[in-house]
Amino acid sequence: MAKKKLSEKEILALLDDPQFHLAVAEYPTEHQDEIDAIDEYIRRVTPSLAPWVSASNPAETRIVGKRVKRVEDPVRLTGQAMYATDVSLPGMLHAAILRSPHARARIEDIDTSAAEALPGVRAVLTYKNVPTEGGAKTGSNPDRYAVQRDVNFAGEEVAAVAAEDAHTAREALDLIKIKWNVLPSITDMKEALLASAPDLAGTRTGNKTPASAPTKRGDFAAAYASAPIKHEGTYTTTTLQHATLEPYATVVRWDAPDHVTAWASTQYAPGIRSGLAGYFGLPRARVRAIAENTGGGFGSKTGANRDAIIAAVLSKMTLRPVKVAFDRPGNFKAATHRFADILTLKAGVTSDGRLVAYEGFNYGDAAAYRGGASAIVPLQRLYRADNATFTYQGVITNRPPSGAQRCVGDPQGTWAQEIFIDELAEKAGMDPVAFRLKNFETKIDQDTKRTWASCGIVECVEQGAKAIGWQQKWHKPGAAIRGSKAHGIGMAAHACAHGAMSLPMSSVVRIDQAGAIDINQGLTEIGGGQSTTMMMIATETVGASLKDAYPTWGDTGFVSDTGGTWGSRGTISAGSAVRNAALDLKAQLLVEATKPRGSSNKPLLEGKPEDLDTADGYAFLKADPSKRVALKDIVSATGSPMMGRGTHVVPAGVAMSVFAAGFAEVEVDLDTGEITLLRYIATDDLGKAINVLGAEQQIEGGASMGIGMALGEELKFDGPGNFPVNANWENYAMPTALDHPRWADFRPILVEPGDAIGPYGAKGLAEPPTAPPPPAIANAVYNAIGVRIHDAPITSDKILAGIKEKGLRA
Amino acid sequence: MAKKKLSEKEILALLDDPQFHLAVAEYPTEHQDEIDAIDEYIRRVTPSLAPWVSASNPAETRIVGKRVKRVEDPVRLTGQAMYATDVSLPGMLHAAILRSPHARARIEDIDTSAAEALPGVRAVLTYKNVPTEGGAKTGSNPDRYAVQRDVNFAGEEVAAVAAEDAHTAREALDLIKIKWNVLPSITDMKEALLASAPDLAGTRTGNKTPASAPTKRGDFAAAYASAPIKHEGTYTTTTLQHATLEPYATVVRWDAPDHVTAWASTQYAPGIRSGLAGYFGLPRARVRAIAENTGGGFGSKTGANRDAIIAAVLSKMTLRPVKVAFDRPGNFKAATHRFADILTLKAGVTSDGRLVAYEGFNYGDAAAYRGGASAIVPLQRLYRADNATFTYQGVITNRPPSGAQRCVGDPQGTWAQEIFIDELAEKAGMDPVAFRLKNFETKIDQDTKRTWASCGIVECVEQGAKAIGWQQKWHKPGAAIRGSKAHGIGMAAHACAHGAMSLPMSSVVRIDQAGAIDINQGLTEIGGGQSTTMMMIATETVGASLKDAYPTWGDTGFVSDTGGTWGSRGTISAGSAVRNAALDLKAQLLVEATKPRGSSNKPLLEGKPEDLDTADGYAFLKADPSKRVALKDIVSATGSPMMGRGTHVVPAGVAMSVFAAGFAEVEVDLDTGEITLLRYIATDDLGKAINVLGAEQQIEGGASMGIGMALGEELKFDGPGNFPVNANWENYAMPTALDHPRWADFRPILVEPGDAIGPYGAKGLAEPPTAPPPPAIANAVYNAIGVRIHDAPITSDKILAGIKEKGLRA
Repeated sequence: MAKKKLSEKEILALLDDPQFHLAVAEYPTEHQDEIDAIDEYIRRVTPSLAPWVSASNPAETRIVGKRVKRVEDPVRLTGQAMYATDVSLPGMLHAAILRSPHARARIEDIDTSAAEALPGVRAVLTYKNVPTEGGAKTGSNPDRYAVQRDVNFAGEEVAAVAAEDAHTAREALDLIKIKWNVLPSITDMKEALLASAPDLAGTRTGNKTPASAPTKRGDFAAAYASAPIKHEGTYTTTTLQHATLEPYATVVRWDAPDHVTAWASTQYAPGIRSGLAGYFGLPRARVRAIAENTGGGFGSKTGANRDAIIAAVLSKMTLRPVKVAFDRPGNFKAATHRFADILTLKAGVTSDGRLVAYEGFNYGDAAAYRGGASAIVPLQRLYRADNATFTYQGVITNRPPSGAQRCVGDPQGTWAQEIFIDELAEKAGMDPVAFRLKNFETKIDQDTKRTWASCGIVECVEQGAKAIGWQQKWHKPGAAIRGSKAHGIGMAAHACAHGAMSLPMSSVVRIDQAGAIDINQGLTEIGGGQSTTMMMIATETVGASLKDAYPTWGDTGFVSDTGGTWGSRGTISAGSAVRNAALDLKAQLLVEATKPRGSSNKPLLEGKPEDLDTADGYAFLKADPSKRVALKDIVSATGSPMMGRGTHVVPAGVAMSVFAAGFAEVEVDLDTGEITLLRYIATDDLGKAINVLGAEQQIEGGASMGIGMALGEELKFDGPGNFPVNANWENYAMPTALDHPRWADFRPILVEPGDAIGPYGAKGLAEPPTAPPPPAIANAVYNAIGVRIHDAPITSDKILAGIKEKGLRA
Repeated sequence: MAKKKLSEKEILALLDDPQFHLAVAEYPTEHQDEIDAIDEYIRRVTPSLAPWVSASNPAETRIVGKRVKRVEDPVRLTGQAMYATDVSLPGMLHAAILRSPHARARIEDIDTSAAEALPGVRAVLTYKNVPTEGGAKTGSNPDRYAVQRDVNFAGEEVAAVAAEDAHTAREALDLIKIKWNVLPSITDMKEALLASAPDLAGTRTGNKTPASAPTKRGDFAAAYASAPIKHEGTYTTTTLQHATLEPYATVVRWDAPDHVTAWASTQYAPGIRSGLAGYFGLPRARVRAIAENTGGGFGSKTGANRDAIIAAVLSKMTLRPVKVAFDRPGNFKAATHRFADILTLKAGVTSDGRLVAYEGFNYGDAAAYRGGASAIVPLQRLYRADNATFTYQGVITNRPPSGAQRCVGDPQGTWAQEIFIDELAEKAGMDPVAFRLKNFETKIDQDTKRTWASCGIVECVEQGAKAIGWQQKWHKPGAAIRGSKAHGIGMAAHACAHGAMSLPMSSVVRIDQAGAIDINQGLTEIGGGQSTTMMMIATETVGASLKDAYPTWGDTGFVSDTGGTWGSRGTISAGSAVRNAALDLKAQLLVEATKPRGSSNKPLLEGKPEDLDTADGYAFLKADPSKRVALKDIVSATGSPMMGRGTHVVPAGVAMSVFAAGFAEVEVDLDTGEITLLRYIATDDLGKAINVLGAEQQIEGGASMGIGMALGEELKFDGPGNFPVNANWENYAMPTALDHPRWADFRPILVEPGDAIGPYGAKGLAEPPTAPPPPAIANAVYNAIGVRIHDAPITSDKILAGIKEKGLRA
């Protein structure tokens, strides 16, 4: 059949037609001509972006590597999707939460009698009746319960009311009387480290957690001493909020005597299950967690947070379903945060620009309840340094609990490292791109000596540099000032601590007599397209069509734990299990196809299973594909659906890492200090894109979060109570569409070296795009005005101070 | 440990203590002493019922054969369970249905303009806009759509309105104007068979469906002619309603472009899935059916009925979720019914009481839309008859669609056969028990010549006769009249057409790192305890504890099709798949337990997998059970959950049948014609009880439905429109607690011969207990007053007419 030809006008019309995108999303093979024409057109009009385009149509797969719109989107886009806050159960109570106005305090007494007397109130939970025995703690820290008597951060949960309606519950909060003993608090790490600081957690360790055993290679001190070029710097980041679209929310129904169902907003339904089972000492089988839709997590919803625990305690008290949904200020104050960080780096470089000595000391804000807060992993793996020492130590403060935010500590570590590396390059008299290319370690994990299963960092940097026009645009710092506008470009590279496979990995893929393929998808869906990705892997592997498949997910009663949707692990960990389950199913199909059956004792296909393959819903003889039978007819012949099961174990001796780079082009206004991000190129080594469209969306979302960290986000604490003063969307400066480069100037470039371990060569992707933007923008600002900013975010006041110091303006 | 001793007082207190029953239900092994003491007590005080009691504690299994309360009950008993009618979705519309007041008519025109103009109305569906192309039909009959222009029964759906609330939808119905062409209708089979009857369905076959090819053995005519004892009789039954607690109800959400989710009240969620996919021509993968709780089905909810189809059409029209819930009168009129039936039987018996010639001709009410309505299966299999002919023919009427009700036709066939057999015994001068025992065919299916995998009919009859005291109580008809009260006993035997395995059979059983066992249970839960039964089979087979397990079910997105919850097949069909899945899981556990692992390269247990067994959550060496490892530790060692998958195929050459008997003791009031059921003993050959408590409940429920058929139930049609005149619970005479023998006088006796094919020796059970009560009661009435009733139900007016004819009263 002749290929359809499309005019430019037709192509542009298609690109603007939502119906076309829906149709392509559902049945890409039926629109191959249009897709090819569009790809050809884009390649022609944007020649520098060829790698991005060519990746979308690999020859060797039929589904994997295509652009598939997510099947889980329409129900969300039309407002019909059920999120935890939408769940409505017969007899359900609504809860409201009372939060501490003090960052550190003890409740001397609490009087709930008036609240309990309010008509419609069914239970009031305080330290007086909160479970404290057995497993009844939230998290692994001592003395942290569903609600708290000894408060360790402003906004902490101290009481909860369950009532017939949300209004009554909130009204009851005002009737609770508390006698406080307010204690001195600190939210700034540097203050907490002062000898005069109060002992915030009774640890008598100068508010420090035990330092990590240093990661050591060679002899840093000797190598540093003898290096001709030396450099040292300290870099800081601050507390950021995830600001997920959906705040913390859980509905719990406690069915007597001992069965609990939780509808949760979470990244990890099995974590809600194990968390509630552990808290109440129930057999895990007696807890079911359901999370069909989750409005973002980014690391803040990794298990049973206080919303789930409080809902469960109240439901057990009342034997009624209870809904707990944090309001926006509550979520800003009490959800886990990206921790603040102080990193001091020191390095020695040879005269020809080779890094020989590298030291990093990292204070991380372990905050209330002593979360892990290390940012040193990117330092360990991106650049070769035969003599190196890296140490981490946590600092106890009264900021809200620290946690991961689109990577545990990489954005902080990469912020420091990539500004530092830029400075090193300058001291070595080298172009920042050339300096990096010279120093990348591309073969092994230097500490375990294991070989990377793949490493595309060189391609990331080379392709990004080409796409942004590095050679044409980079200049000496401050060399491109025209009037009040200064132009600059900058870059950053990144090796991610995550993006490797991890256990558990497990899946079931099924096919029924009509050929319907159900992918029982153990990942919790948080908006990253995990379900569609698993569906693509399953159908590609079974040899079925996308339109005959559907993924289901989010219910621990039905799907096996395949790990959390975090750590950039979903596609590769769950995907490996899905692939193995699909292979198990395919093997059964081929056996059944070649098994003699019926009164004729003939098989559906003559031959041995190994003589057959599958594609597009058929099994066929490899030697003669015209001899084929529909998969559904094989299943019908057996009379029952068929199921494949899969788990996966990572081969010993290898290591996985993902790599990324970012290239930013900025304009700095010398009068206002305002930064305009003109262009941003994100290159990401993801091994191989399963869903090209999904990968691009992940990169865009990740870069947008990085832009937020770069240009404005910071949760600020102030006042006598050390209260977060901008705990809302009005005052917390997240990027909007206006802060993001417009579509034409933002491009994700997929670097696909393939990978020896991941399914179809894939590695992780979700977190890596987040880390490069802040240092890339900081380096671009330096290129524009010659001002180094070491302390994120890069705000106008810091820029203006630098401009003044430089003498560019009075 | 010494066995706990309990006093009679303590035992009686425990029996009355719901907390104890809950505790036993959840953790039976922890209460073994109490269970043993109660069993011993019951055995002592009711010696004749020993078989019932002893069956509950077999030595060779740990979980199977115990009395386990259903884990799915608490959420239902507390009103927290979500049924289809409880589902509330964002943006959901409510539908109301307009039903025809005529039993046969054509709509000449319909005017919906006023209804459409009513504020809040979003769609009106009539024959003018109903889909009629492609698969768009409800059921396989010609010209039957979501709503109907050509009406074939009174109460048929002719229009539907979707509106913002239920009140507006109902109000809009009154605004629809219809111009009717009313046609002559018939609801009585005998009238439909008259030569003068109108041609109701345009078939020109005298309102008959094609007769079945007769089942033939030997030479009936010759054997009948030469038999010394001959008998002939005609027996009828009438139309019954299931009267499920929950009427037909479905919520459908149509997500553009082509994904449909249906929350349905159904016995077969996969049938909703395939039904909607077929109706709309969608790939089956694009339809998901959810049915977590269903308030009874009994054969009326076997697929996509008009509630589901109408909801889906309206949701597709509006792109909003739509709820359709039949009201009670609507459900009485339009849900499928147990068909009425006319059976003429003829037999020849030798002088020593052996059945040699047997003929049955069966007219069944195929009603509107020509449903199957045959009742001849029990005739074919229970009694040996070397010369036999059985024929079935359907009759077209304007009654609502016929269907199954706790068996397709057995209650009707057994009603006829068991009165007829009683009459034969009398003609042969034999005791009815002795006559039956002499004539049972216990070895083979006479038509296929296949051997029954098991047959317990002799034990059913012998144990039932012993339990009711047949030898002491049976007397000549009318020989026990004292004043106005006549005492009688009667019995009936039954071989069920169902209760055998059938495809599909499939299941997944999972275990996680905490040892939690999830049984992904493909049967739809309709209140029969299927989930708990599957959980018992799974845990017994894996070797786990009940408290570490939980079943989940009712969502085609997650569970594979293991067939409908009908045909008494669930326990054996799904149970076989669950058992195979559990065996697959167990095999994996034993392999992993003996696999060398870790740096020591040692296995968790030394030995080969075949040296190991499992029980109570542990794998252990058979030779030394003290060498053991917890199943959860095996799973933890692998790092991922483990999954077992199972399907099952019935071995060739064997056949399964289930058998039952019923023994009724009645008192007939000669003045009022009232029948009091003094005692009823139900004996059921179920092969082997998995959950003894559940089996007893099934028998009690089934017997209760049989008592309803015997004593009063009949959906009556009257008036010019042939309208059902008692389509509500006030006037449709279902048995209440007062009509059922009190607990002490109603006893289920489990006959457990074991079975060569079923899981743990189980066969089916749900339907068989329903068939014996009506003829057993009819025979007891004959024993009491000497009056034969051939036409069910046995109402007072028929009794009084018989009494008058007998001259017992004037």
